[in-house]
Order: sequence, then structure tokens, then C-alpha cells
Amino acid sequence: MAVTPWEVSGRVDYDKLVKDFGTGRIAPALRARLERNAGGSNVMLRRDYFFSHRDLDLVMDDYEKGKGFYLYTGRGPSGPMHIGHLIPLIFTKWLQDRFKVNLYIEITDDEKFVCKREAEWGDIGKYADENIRDIAAVGFDPDRTFIFRDSEYVGNVYPMLMKIAKKVTYSTVKAVFGFTNETNIGFIFYPAYQIMPTLFEKGRCLIPAAIDQDPYWRIQRDIAESLGYHKTAAIHSKFLSPLQGAEGKMSSSVRESAIWLEDDEKTVRKKIMKYAFSGGRSTLEEQRKLGADLSVDVPFQWLSVLFEPDDGELKRIAGEYGSGRMLTGEVKELLAKKLNEFLAEHRERKKNVDVKRYTHTGKLAQEMWKKKYV
Amino acid sequence: MAVTPWEVSGRVDYDKLVKDFGTGRIAPALRARLERNAGGSNVMLRRDYFFSHRDLDLVMDDYEKGKGFYLYTGRGPSGPMHIGHLIPLIFTKWLQDRFKVNLYIEITDDEKFVCKREAEWGDIGKYADENIRDIAAVGFDPDRTFIFRDSEYVGNVYPMLMKIAKKVTYSTVKAVFGFTNETNIGFIFYPAYQIMPTLFEKGRCLIPAAIDQDPYWRIQRDIAESLGYHKTAAIHSKFLSPLQGAEGKMSSSVRESAIWLEDDEKTVRKKIMKYAFSGGRSTLEEQRKLGADLSVDVPFQWLSVLFEPDDGELKRIAGEYGSGRMLTGEVKELLAKKLNEFLAEHRERKKNVDVKRYTHTGKLAQEMWKKKYV
Repeated sequence: MAVTPWEVSGRVDYDKLVKDFGTGRIAPALRARLERNAGGSNVMLRRDYFFSHRDLDLVMDDYEKGKGFYLYTGRGPSGPMHIGHLIPLIFTKWLQDRFKVNLYIEITDDEKFVCKREAEWGDIGKYADENIRDIAAVGFDPDRTFIFRDSEYVGNVYPMLMKIAKKVTYSTVKAVFGFTNETNIGFIFYPAYQIMPTLFEKGRCLIPAAIDQDPYWRIQRDIAESLGYHKTAAIHSKFLSPLQGAEGKMSSSVRESAIWLEDDEKTVRKKIMKYAFSGGRSTLEEQRKLGADLSVDVPFQWLSVLFEPDDGELKRIAGEYGSGRMLTGEVKELLAKKLNEFLAEHRERKKNVDVKRYTHTGKLAQEMWKKKYV
Repeated sequence: MAVTPWEVSGRVDYDKLVKDFGTGRIAPALRARLERNAGGSNVMLRRDYFFSHRDLDLVMDDYEKGKGFYLYTGRGPSGPMHIGHLIPLIFTKWLQDRFKVNLYIEITDDEKFVCKREAEWGDIGKYADENIRDIAAVGFDPDRTFIFRDSEYVGNVYPMLMKIAKKVTYSTVKAVFGFTNETNIGFIFYPAYQIMPTLFEKGRCLIPAAIDQDPYWRIQRDIAESLGYHKTAAIHSKFLSPLQGAEGKMSSSVRESAIWLEDDEKTVRKKIMKYAFSGGRSTLEEQRKLGADLSVDVPFQWLSVLFEPDDGELKRIAGEYGSGRMLTGEVKELLAKKLNEFLAEHRERKKNVDVKRYTHTGKLAQEMWKKKYV
């Protein structure tokens, strides 16, 4: 197992990650408190997809005391987006809707350029355009959301980037990210920028993101208070398995491992039918007798994470499929249908979304372009 | 002897520096060619104060072929400026006047902030304001000169900074600058920005600066062609000795070692009389008999570098003082007078200079604010 911001491979042991990273499992009481304050339940919390956190309890303290908090997440525009990229954003939207808070979404064009040897600046710019459109289509509050590219917003934050950078030694980034003598100085500097949005407001920042990003937050938490800000809080998701099986995460470099937001209905159905790793048995007879092994079944996992939000229905599927009364083909058809509905809605929103409101003309965006962080 | 961009100490052996850095002495033929193209002679060239170079011959080739070139120099705004800071700028003005070329002056507020532990961003901003005013007062062509602060111009160059940074590994900056595990990641990144202005134009860049800045140009020359630009050229000055003697360079942290641009007439005279290291003998009798040792005499050195541009007059002083007919006090009075004339003119220009033309409203400045370097 390897989990870094640039690589996730092997079968991920989430208990070990929580221990190694020093984060906390979201205990039932904390989840109940979050849902109580949110005024409702969330499928990704119930299903333990968002499973770990840092200081979520303090975020709830602040919220309950009326101090508020804000949200920050991001996207590295190294290619088109797949369904796994969208899921934490959907959870983020839920948080924003429920708590009516500001949200900052960092598009890390600089990072993607310096971390990938073959990356071209022009390509990254095109992906950034496309990704921002996909992200805006999630439907965030356009007056409480600011989507920005690092390269475009840098003029507003550079002195503060220097203040962050001055507090982080090479020794720290070497230890945290495994940087070596061969690492370029742009990549070495970049962590300062990923930390920057955690200082956008004086209130506490809560970051919904996959757990592989946590190393950045560890550095932030070492330096934030000396800069007059809170240690950031975080709520961590697991990784959505690639279609081929429950190891690593969906990879942008293996096209068949993912469902892409641009995949059409036929492609989606075909990919799921052909590639989705099944826990079903190899013959009808065995399946009827033994039932499917749900713990390795990718279609069932995807349904669990998000695509079958009805707990009763999911339980029914688990019972039928796990006992062998339902076959792999049926579960796959179910997932294909749900996914295609989801993607059709996404495409529709994407067609109509006013991207500029998120990047420039919305209330928060306008405020942010006026700000200088010094 | 130690010569790095952040420290100059000991008795500087310029022959050794030329050898260690791999630069070239400005040979008489090259100097003659430069002066011929310039249509006149320059005191700092004649007196060997600008003594070393990289590719100055190629700059002359380009000039003679009508391809032109441009100038770039800079200033780290870590405090008020002294006379030693102004001298390379005066030489730069001579080059600009003679060749009618563009000049870029980088104010490295970011560098000064990250490289000095105790530096505060607010202080650096104030020094930058004051320094820019002093620099503008040198009298550069306001339509061919752009003075910019790193923190303010970064939005126009960030993608290009990333392209530079991507080509420079930690291993390189460690070797060139002696960075260690304790160096902060802002400082590690900074060399990318000092290289940036060498890519401002497609023509060849010529950098007039003290030789301690050369390590940056070595990195630039390793990567520039792969980015589609010329290796930068440079013309290097020696260091102006501190008043107390011919070791190291004038130090911003020892106030009495320097003549500050803000020193009034009385202070200037007093400092020179009291602190300027003399090659004269300790008694009148000895001085009359042996004469002054000009090689260690600071007032004579300062007159040589710039303040007595008349070669005949300098020769006369050397003869009189070196033979003992002239006394230290007389030479010091001479220098004090020249310096005070120089500073009075500078103060007058500073009072009246339109700084905004250099930073925003001049022809080149306006063009630069419209540019995006990608």
C-alpha cells in the first residue's frame, strides 16, 4: 500500500492510514452531532465513505457558538475528470448547502505543471477550463463559492505565500513528501500554495478531501498558529475503487479504470458490464449457492458510496445479491442506470452553468479579487 | 575570502573569483569595442571597476548586427541604500544612455523577506518604496525603464516562473548557493524569480551587477536555451570597499562602514575624516618621506572608482599623495567635497523624480503591465 498526494496503490488499509497519519475516525457521536447541526443525514457519512477527520469537533464547537467556519477543497487539472473526482465535491456541496458557508476551490495548475515531467502549460490550461466547468456544474452557491486558478490568483496572495514558505524548511517537505535532490524547486515550493487557502479567513477552515491530501494539512497545522490563524480541520474520504477492483484509486492514466464525466451512456454501460470487478461467482450455479462476495464487488461498492442513497434498497440488494438470488449482471445494470442518470443531470447542469459567477462575478468571487493577502 | 549573493568578506581576490566563477576578464580589445560602440569612454571601465563579464562579446555582436540587446539589474530592499548600491546603477544608466536600450530593474522584496530570519514584510515594503525612489533618481530613460517589485508583478510572470523552476533541481541550488535542510522553501524557490527578467525579451540580456550575483546567471545559462531564450550576458563590478578598509564590501548592518544616500553634508565629511582607512603614514615626517600607500587607501580608491573622473587629475593626486607631498587630510577633504556634490545632486533629482513613470505610466512600464509571460 502506498498513499501519497501523487500515488495511491495497493489495497488501502484505512485503519492503518488513520493510525499512520494520526487522524481520527469519525466516531458515531461526532457524526450524529454533524448531522444534527446540518439538519439531516448524508449518505457518504452514513456509509463511512467520509470516515476520518482532524478537529471536526472544533468546527462543530465554532458552529454551535455562532463563530462559523468555511470550506476549502481543490482539484489538480491534469486531465479530464472522472466520477471519483466529483464525489468529494458532492459531499462538499452538501456541507455548504446545510451550513451556508463560504467555499474556496483551488485549481492547482502550478502543481500539476511542476510535478509531471511531461506536462505542458497549455494543456493544463485547457484541462483547467474544462474542470472548472465540471466543478461549477456541481451546483455550489454562486455567491458563496470562489473557484480560482493558482496562476491567476497569485498576485493577490504572494506576500502571504512567502510568509508560509518562510516557515517551512526543506527538511520538512523532504520528510513529509519524500522530496529528493532531483525534485525541482517549483515542486518544493508548491506546498506553500496548497496551504494558502487555509488562511483565507480568520475563522476555522474545514477541508473535505480524500485522505491522500492530509500530509499538506500536517504542515499547515504546524505553522498556522504562528501566523495568527487556526490549525485547519479536515474531513477525509476514502478512495473510489477503480472498476477493475478494490486496489488503489481510479487512475487518470488508465482510461478504462474510470467512468469519465464525458463518457456517453453506451460507453458507461459497456465499461461497467465489461470491466467492473465482480464479487459474483463464475457460474450461475455457484452464484445461486454461495452468493456474491460483496466486500470485493465494485458495482456494489459504488452503489454503497453514493449511487443508491436509499438505505432500505441498498440492504435489499445486499441481501439478494449476497445470497445468490440476484446475479452480477442485474447489479451492473442497476449501477449503469443510476450512473447514467447522474451523468445526464451533470451534463445538463454543465451546459447551463454560469462559470463566471464562481470565478469572477459572484459575491464571494468579487470580494476575493479585491483582497490582497499580506 | 567569501563571496556569495548574501555575504562578501575578507580581502577579495578578483583574479581568483574570475577563475572560480568561470567568467572572463574584460580584455582591452573588448573594452575598446564596447566604448567604440558606445561612442565614448566610461570611468568605471577605464578604472577596471567593471572588470569581468560573460558573453559581452556576443552582446556587441548582436548590437553591431542591429539585433540589439537589453539591460537588467536589481536591488534587494532590505534597508536604505548607500553609495555602493548606486554605483552599478550609474554604470547601467551610462549603458542605457549610450545604447538606447530597455532596462528592467527587479526589486526583490520576496527574496529579502525569505532570506532574513528577522525581516518583516511591512518593513521591506517601506524600504522598497524608498529604494525605488532612489533608483528612479539615477535618471534612467523613463520610457525605456521598468522598475517592479517581485510581489506586485508576480501575476504577470507566474507560469514562466514555474517553467524556470521546473528546470532547476534542489541538487543544483544546493550546489550553487549552499542551501541546506534548514533552508526555507521560499528561499529555495526564489532563484527562479531572479532568473525571470533574463527572459523578458527574446534579444540578449546584459546584466550589470556586482560579481557576487553571478551564481544566479550560471543557473540561467544552463537552462535558458532549453526555454527558447539566450544565455544571459553579464558585466561584473568589483565591490566598493567599506570606509574602514579594503576587505569585504560596505555592509548595511554596520552603519559607519558606508556613506548612506540620506547622510547630510556634515555626516559625510565627519565619517570620511574619522573612519576612512588611510594609506598615509602616521606622522607628517614619515608621510613626507615615504608617501601614502595608495593600494590600501580608501579615499583614493573611492576617487578612482567614480568620484574623480578626470584621469589627469587622478594621476596628479596619485603622484602628490603617493610621494608624500599631499597629506591624508587633503585627500579626504577632496573626497568629502566630491561626494557631497554627488549626494546633493542625487537628493535634488530624488525630490523631483516622477517615480510612477518607471513603475507604471512610462512607455515600457505600460507595455509590461499588459504582458503575460507564459
